[in-house]
Amino acid sequence: MKSYRKELWFRTRTRRELVNITSQVQQCLAESGVQEGLLLCNAMHITASVFINDDESGLHQDFETWLEKLAPEKPHSQYHHNTGEDNADAHLKRTVMGREVMVAITQGRLDFGPWEQIFYGEFDGKRDKRVLVKIVGE
Amino acid sequence: MKSYRKELWFRTRTRRELVNITSQVQQCLAESGVQEGLLLCNAMHITASVFINDDESGLHQDFETWLEKLAPEKPHSQYHHNTGEDNADAHLKRTVMGREVMVAITQGRLDFGPWEQIFYGEFDGKRDKRVLVKIVGE
Amino acid sequence: MKSYRKELWFRTRTRRELVNITSQVQQCLAESGVQEGLLLCNAMHITASVFINDDESGLHQDFETWLEKLAPEKPHSQYHHNTGEDNADAHLKRTVMGREVMVAITQGRLDFGPWEQIFYGEFDGKRDKRVLVKIVGE
Repeated sequence: MKSYRKELWFRTRTRRELVNITSQVQQCLAESGVQEGLLLCNAMHITASVFINDDESGLHQDFETWLEKLAPEKPHSQYHHNTGEDNADAHLKRTVMGREVMVAITQGRLDFGPWEQIFYGEFDGKRDKRVLVKIVGE
Repeated sequence: MKSYRKELWFRTRTRRELVNITSQVQQCLAESGVQEGLLLCNAMHITASVFINDDESGLHQDFETWLEKLAPEKPHSQYHHNTGEDNADAHLKRTVMGREVMVAITQGRLDFGPWEQIFYGEFDGKRDKRVLVKIVGE
Repeated sequence: MKSYRKELWFRTRTRRELVNITSQVQQCLAESGVQEGLLLCNAMHITASVFINDDESGLHQDFETWLEKLAPEKPHSQYHHNTGEDNADAHLKRTVMGREVMVAITQGRLDFGPWEQIFYGEFDGKRDKRVLVKIVGE
């Protein structure tokens, strides 16, 4: 069994941002040399997400509007998680979007459907944060 | 290490539908010969879901009503993902329900609690779409 | 390849409760002897969740308020899943929070970011329910 581990670092310019990280994850897979197995990609922070969806800017705008409806940032006073923090909404948004994805590895490739792309979803950005890529297989 | 891969194909008659795929996934596991390991089952399309819940028709009606409340289909004009598409709501619904499930394999069986069943959740159907089953173990 | 399996049992005093199970999962990992691999931790019941977030009481209060807004318990009559059940809301809340987490195992440890903690999310408690821990690796 082979195993591989890498951290990807991000620092977004805005509080919320969606970053397509598919090619970085593919590079990890190439480095690992794994042909058959499983790949885990997860946010290492609890106000960020890793998820799979479409790389279409209109849809990304829809995600932003929708997440603000389900878990609005403001007023901060509506939340109890205010012990020096103003990011309760980011914990909730990340919960909707999910912490992690598992991807099948088949013949050395991410075994994806036609439109699947991996995104880093940042909901409390403007600081250095990490994503973990862990690969297990042969 | 053994690895196994299969695509399951679906074409629902309606736009939204929940399909119990537990027995098809169990058949994949039997074909794989894996006794101990992990099974990944994921939608290969970004407007569909694979999730685990109860096979009870009243609950499925509740899911439909609830998802329409959280991410209504109409009016399509409320969304920006309209580049020849009218399925932004399906991307959001699938996000709530999740893309994938991981199931433990123990002694050659899906290691499930008493009511766990695997469903394909279609939110933009009436066309051919796929689910991936990937099994890794021994 | 090593594989390890354990059930953790819970009986909460209230209908809804969040329980930090990180140390119990760490103990499973120690028992398994696995140094490199993947750990699956999932609720075996469909009205409960396993998720990763922050161990901060204000945030947990925010989760409770938020889940009650997204999928209110009462009135029970608003749901169709009432075949001797009054827990449709628990199925929906668990869907938002997620059934399972996958955790990378690196050098014999849960490969976590600084604030990641594993929680059992109970949404229909006051009875015995189980979580599965499955570990695969070397």
